[in-house]
Amino acid sequence: MRAAVLGSGSWGTTFAAVMADAGCDVTVWGRDAATVDEIARDRRNSRYLPGVELPAAVTATQDARAAVADADVVAVAVPSQRARAVLAPLADAVPGHTVLVSLMKGVELETDQRMSEVVAECLGIAADRVAVLSGPNLAREIALRQPTATVVASTSPDTAALVARACASSYFRPYTNPDVVGVELCGAVKNVIALAVGISQGRGMGFNTMATVITRGLVEITRLGLALGADAETFPGLAGMGDLMATCASPDSRNHTLGVHIGRGMRLDEAVVATGGTAEGVKSCRSVLELATSLGVEMPITSAVVQVLHENLPVDELAGLLLARPHKAEGVRPDATRVP
Amino acid sequence: MRAAVLGSGSWGTTFAAVMADAGCDVTVWGRDAATVDEIARDRRNSRYLPGVELPAAVTATQDARAAVADADVVAVAVPSQRARAVLAPLADAVPGHTVLVSLMKGVELETDQRMSEVVAECLGIAADRVAVLSGPNLAREIALRQPTATVVASTSPDTAALVARACASSYFRPYTNPDVVGVELCGAVKNVIALAVGISQGRGMGFNTMATVITRGLVEITRLGLALGADAETFPGLAGMGDLMATCASPDSRNHTLGVHIGRGMRLDEAVVATGGTAEGVKSCRSVLELATSLGVEMPITSAVVQVLHENLPVDELAGLLLARPHKAEGVRPDATRVP
Repeated sequence: MRAAVLGSGSWGTTFAAVMADAGCDVTVWGRDAATVDEIARDRRNSRYLPGVELPAAVTATQDARAAVADADVVAVAVPSQRARAVLAPLADAVPGHTVLVSLMKGVELETDQRMSEVVAECLGIAADRVAVLSGPNLAREIALRQPTATVVASTSPDTAALVARACASSYFRPYTNPDVVGVELCGAVKNVIALAVGISQGRGMGFNTMATVITRGLVEITRLGLALGADAETFPGLAGMGDLMATCASPDSRNHTLGVHIGRGMRLDEAVVATGGTAEGVKSCRSVLELATSLGVEMPITSAVVQVLHENLPVDELAGLLLARPHKAEGVRPDATRVP
Repeated sequence: MRAAVLGSGSWGTTFAAVMADAGCDVTVWGRDAATVDEIARDRRNSRYLPGVELPAAVTATQDARAAVADADVVAVAVPSQRARAVLAPLADAVPGHTVLVSLMKGVELETDQRMSEVVAECLGIAADRVAVLSGPNLAREIALRQPTATVVASTSPDTAALVARACASSYFRPYTNPDVVGVELCGAVKNVIALAVGISQGRGMGFNTMATVITRGLVEITRLGLALGADAETFPGLAGMGDLMATCASPDSRNHTLGVHIGRGMRLDEAVVATGGTAEGVKSCRSVLELATSLGVEMPITSAVVQVLHENLPVDELAGLLLARPHKAEGVRPDATRVP
């Protein structure tokens, strides 16, 4: 199979290696001439994956039209807010049989579209030629060929199966799932929960608190997902719980790290500087809460994060806010009976 | 409310403090005279909870019949295989209105009974007077009053509500759940998954592998639970995913630690010595697999743990065993379609 990857960052380059190990010939497109040259000539990307040697079947180009021209699968791994600018000029360059797979997280802020919707719209193709891929997939560990699994979601079983074949190897195991909405929602909301976990850890809380925030966070993501037509089973799966656990355990997550700074008492502007840039969840927590409110879905953890980050709630009151509510039955159904 | 705790170990003593902070007068029963004296006189348990001062409403006795005689709630926190010996002599001492709550994990090996069944049978009381309590509840962190949540499961909503009221406080949040079978199954099987996570970490695998093993481990526990009549929603909840995450993150879990030793190449007998005793999952993994096989449920991770611990499978083949199976759809339904 021939494959292309749009984006030469850490995840794009790693996924090129994954597809090469699965038997594909892979061309990486990148904007940065030095990175493209290094991948093409030395099979390295020392800026994003220092110390990793890429498989022989990976090459690179600065010509995006050439990269996609004969590809059976095109993976899109550019920053979410830049996807439209990268994809729109390629509409007439992508062959009619090609399948697209989005590796992007979050939503397009201007349109509130999910990234698979942006891909289909920009290229003028049907939704069933697009898949999304998400899971506990820290790039660095995959580049070292440590075993992991992932979810490939598409409304078309054939599209999902093709993408799964293009990336399956002895260390990378794809599971297919028809629930595109649920998988993309997990990717968009997990950063908010990672912020909440970081905040509690910054306050010195241990593993019980971490596990409680993640588990109850998943319950509220699931409630939002059900209101949007997603499948409840997606959320405890690899793209939901799996990705969230890997994100919260890793020291590399920007959202988690920013949360830790806030938990230790920094103001938001100080924490952004200390983290080396803003984290995606800082913006998206408000959009998520607005969406939930408009659908009548209760999201107490997301709401607490919004109040701490944007409404000057003292961080010490966060735990109280989560624990002092009336006692309830477990489970995701919003009509769960209350315990007196 | 008056409460008693049977068992003066780390979790029993901690739960006594939790109930005292919730407003109960609590009597701890223990076998060890020195521990009982220290709790009663100094409100400390320096053997199991060094450095923690217990609330004033906690006292202790070596007389189990006196401890339960006027209790509204009795919590049982003795080692699972000793529960029958402790409880049977108390059948005529427990008042007719008293509610029991099991804090125990695992099953009684001789009878294969769940611990709530052992409690009801030994005391000759109806199942609806028994609750089980389970969640991300590392005792040490709770003793330090760090926030966490838990599940109180009972077939009777009144029993669950009474136990929830007896332990709810600003740092300890109980959620009720009618699914006793599911909650007890989570507690019994999580040690097997903790072993698998430990093994992979002992091999040097990182956070992706950990998250994948936990997430897929939960899928197979859920499949077993469905075959036994449990509710699928229990497993991604606090007693399932929540407890598993806290267990795998904590350095104190014996099952996890023993797995790490095995992953680093020790034989089982060496690992048991290095861990300071056998871990519950070493025995229970075989019972779990037998149960699953008899019900026609596929449990690949449990099966791999059994093969590594008891059938001399080289530990390096564990990852291959998990990842090389045919690609499948995500989700817990066993009839999930296969990807060609």
